[in-house]
Amino acid sequence: MTEIIMVGCNGRMGQVISNLVAQDENAKIVAGVDVFDDGRNPYPVFKNLEECTVAADAVIDFSSPKSLEVLLRVSKKRNLPLVLCTTGYTEEDLKKIEEASKEVAILRSANMSLGVNTLLKLVSVAANVLAKADFDIEIIEKHHNQKVDAPSGTALALADAINEALNNEYHYMYDRSKVREKRDIKEIGISAVRGGNIVGEHEVIFAGTDEVIEFKHTAYSKAIFAKGAITAAKYLAGKGPGLYSMSDVIA
Amino acid sequence: MTEIIMVGCNGRMGQVISNLVAQDENAKIVAGVDVFDDGRNPYPVFKNLEECTVAADAVIDFSSPKSLEVLLRVSKKRNLPLVLCTTGYTEEDLKKIEEASKEVAILRSANMSLGVNTLLKLVSVAANVLAKADFDIEIIEKHHNQKVDAPSGTALALADAINEALNNEYHYMYDRSKVREKRDIKEIGISAVRGGNIVGEHEVIFAGTDEVIEFKHTAYSKAIFAKGAITAAKYLAGKGPGLYSMSDVIA
Amino acid sequence: MTEIIMVGCNGRMGQVISNLVAQDENAKIVAGVDVFDDGRNPYPVFKNLEECTVAADAVIDFSSPKSLEVLLRVSKKRNLPLVLCTTGYTEEDLKKIEEASKEVAILRSANMSLGVNTLLKLVSVAANVLAKADFDIEIIEKHHNQKVDAPSGTALALADAINEALNNEYHYMYDRSKVREKRDIKEIGISAVRGGNIVGEHEVIFAGTDEVIEFKHTAYSKAIFAKGAITAAKYLAGKGPGLYSMSDVIA
Amino acid sequence: MTEIIMVGCNGRMGQVISNLVAQDENAKIVAGVDVFDDGRNPYPVFKNLEECTVAADAVIDFSSPKSLEVLLRVSKKRNLPLVLCTTGYTEEDLKKIEEASKEVAILRSANMSLGVNTLLKLVSVAANVLAKADFDIEIIEKHHNQKVDAPSGTALALADAINEALNNEYHYMYDRSKVREKRDIKEIGISAVRGGNIVGEHEVIFAGTDEVIEFKHTAYSKAIFAKGAITAAKYLAGKGPGLYSMSDVIA
Repeated sequence: MTEIIMVGCNGRMGQVISNLVAQDENAKIVAGVDVFDDGRNPYPVFKNLEECTVAADAVIDFSSPKSLEVLLRVSKKRNLPLVLCTTGYTEEDLKKIEEASKEVAILRSANMSLGVNTLLKLVSVAANVLAKADFDIEIIEKHHNQKVDAPSGTALALADAINEALNNEYHYMYDRSKVREKRDIKEIGISAVRGGNIVGEHEVIFAGTDEVIEFKHTAYSKAIFAKGAITAAKYLAGKGPGLYSMSDVIA
Repeated sequence: MTEIIMVGCNGRMGQVISNLVAQDENAKIVAGVDVFDDGRNPYPVFKNLEECTVAADAVIDFSSPKSLEVLLRVSKKRNLPLVLCTTGYTEEDLKKIEEASKEVAILRSANMSLGVNTLLKLVSVAANVLAKADFDIEIIEKHHNQKVDAPSGTALALADAINEALNNEYHYMYDRSKVREKRDIKEIGISAVRGGNIVGEHEVIFAGTDEVIEFKHTAYSKAIFAKGAITAAKYLAGKGPGLYSMSDVIA
Repeated sequence: MTEIIMVGCNGRMGQVISNLVAQDENAKIVAGVDVFDDGRNPYPVFKNLEECTVAADAVIDFSSPKSLEVLLRVSKKRNLPLVLCTTGYTEEDLKKIEEASKEVAILRSANMSLGVNTLLKLVSVAANVLAKADFDIEIIEKHHNQKVDAPSGTALALADAINEALNNEYHYMYDRSKVREKRDIKEIGISAVRGGNIVGEHEVIFAGTDEVIEFKHTAYSKAIFAKGAITAAKYLAGKGPGLYSMSDVIA
Repeated sequence: MTEIIMVGCNGRMGQVISNLVAQDENAKIVAGVDVFDDGRNPYPVFKNLEECTVAADAVIDFSSPKSLEVLLRVSKKRNLPLVLCTTGYTEEDLKKIEEASKEVAILRSANMSLGVNTLLKLVSVAANVLAKADFDIEIIEKHHNQKVDAPSGTALALADAINEALNNEYHYMYDRSKVREKRDIKEIGISAVRGGNIVGEHEVIFAGTDEVIEFKHTAYSKAIFAKGAITAAKYLAGKGPGLYSMSDVIA
């Protein structure tokens, strides 16, 4: 049973995590932290992590970068493993996190979804095997019609993971309509599809001679980040100091 | 039983058609036409269509634009329905075809595949229904790594068929990586994937709120053009003068 | 602008419809009907449709079969087109609906999703063309791991629509592991996949020689039934007596 | 440069391998073995492996189980690594192979495709991560309409690889239409689709809460087994005694 303190417990993601944990036999939220509280949670809620003295195995944070300083201080003092799901940290913040991780276990990832992180890991392994056998690599991502950036950060993370596994010898191609040229063998084509309210799909295609292997991740809701955070907390409980990522969780 | 004269019978596509017809109870090649012949076919082969006086229900041509003049002359004279599968005709050629079609049945299509032509037809119907309901439209095509043009002609034909059904109000988008803007509602995104020796895949995606409809055609070999030609010949046999296309065949 | 009376306005689907209509320039809910009301809606709510005298173009019902009698009586009296989205009607109910439709426009469908109904229509057209060309027909449906029936009603509706288009000459095959036999040509294979919390995916596959056409519908939430109901109400407004279905809406 | 002796060089697979190697800068067929020969190959062909004294780095066998005894004898005598692609060995044969592998490097796999073997490896890794997080596991395989057995041997190999990674706690489900029950969590559903002349598709689906990961292999021709054999020969050249499989090649 992993006992968790949920920082940002009354935010949208905090509530999603609370509801998921309520149905999980191997985890329990023993206390929450949030600036606002209306008493709806089955656990005590504190205004500040420093006020919370409830015993726990890990802290999950889904609040804001502003909480970082208190989080690191309390985590170190109480030797409380810390799962950071907040995004938007500055370079300076990241250094503080790295520094603190020498004294306590901290996990941070750009994407908390178990599925995407599993995909990130497996495509690297696949790339190593298949690129040597001259398979071409392509990525297609699909998102809703309100998304302004393309390709998605996760598509680029997938491309980067593959490229790193291949000694960074590949370049990315976003548009083939402008040239009349054969595909370069050291090319990763990345296509961005936009439509409806698609939450997020990522597909990595390895196309060889007479065979194709595809890896696809489909997200149906942002709740998958909640689930990833809980899995991370279970993993981190009892771990010694160090800077961990979701790739360690799925090792 | 449709009796066929195969023009270009010893070319690659001519042979594919010959082999397919040999297994077809409802069709028979009664004569071939080709400049070269080694006697391998079970039917008589003539150097020129004019020399061939064998009775038939239709002519399939898979030779070259150079044959056009003789084809039209003989077809008209013998009232022989004509399936033109050759590509590369000039504007002048196309006019001659149209002119001849006032006297004899002629069928010509950019893509002879039954599947692609079925898709062309159905996506127009779907577009009419779904665009009104604010579904976004996207096309993904995949081809082998030796293809130099992008997007494929068939992808553009699909986009054009959809656009025509929607009063030509849509524009095409090939690259979203250069702008940080939301998708325009009157936009058809077209993505081109290249890899391995993929023969050809075309996918039309209608993405709405909370639901997505996808139409996908996968070609496993160029033999599908042969099959389309045979189906077209059966359809054309006995038809009166007129300019037909594969969309008539699948009406 | 289609003015709608929403019967069952405070139920889950009634609220989803209310929220969707609030964002729709061409539709407006002018009154609601529900046994309970907490004043949260921007329109007046009546306990009973008979008490509601607000002028409107159509009624959408997402309440329960119990409301049927009142619905039919008021619809006929006020000549108010009626969209019935409720399921669970008895045979007797269905007869009453048919009878009433001689006096007023009524639309009823087993599945209100625009996408699924579009698919139902298009696969019939495709079946007609492709079955003649010896394409084999297969259906795959995917649903969440709590669903107890298999295959899904929509998968069977798709199979039935195809079968009807093909003179009902086909039979359905649910399990190929028990026999060591080639697939029958008059067979529609139906596979049921269960996992996670998948809302619903239906795929119809036409597999021919060297080419495959696939039609796929993916539902991301039950809100698509709400959207279908609104589209149906717009369609029905101003229509004369008759029994309509979603297939008319997408005609 | 890996120099290969091709046993069964004039069979269908032997010729496919010959053609592929002819275009490969890092491999060369230096001799062939076959009972029939018409002199079409650019390398000498021997009636029997024992008559062939050409120096080589590896032997590829795509002949028949009958050749096994000679193959093992010569391989051991000449210390020639041996890639066995033939299927249909008896239990006794397999013991002889294992025995011989103590003296010379031998590689044998049920499926020589690089892609399928990569998939086999990756789904085991994925299963370990995702089953713990309560993802449900399903497999869909698609083959041509002439295949009499279902599910395919490769689908079962995928299921077995997953099951083994999960302590063999799972059972397989082939038909859900007979019961009205929720899916068991320790169940791997396996669906078999049959149609057209599909060469072979295998899809492993991990369906979790709000996210799905899919791994798909598509074979476009049996030539992929040829390619796998060549990759195996390159890998085996120079290796010491041992019994290898394709999973070692892609390690």
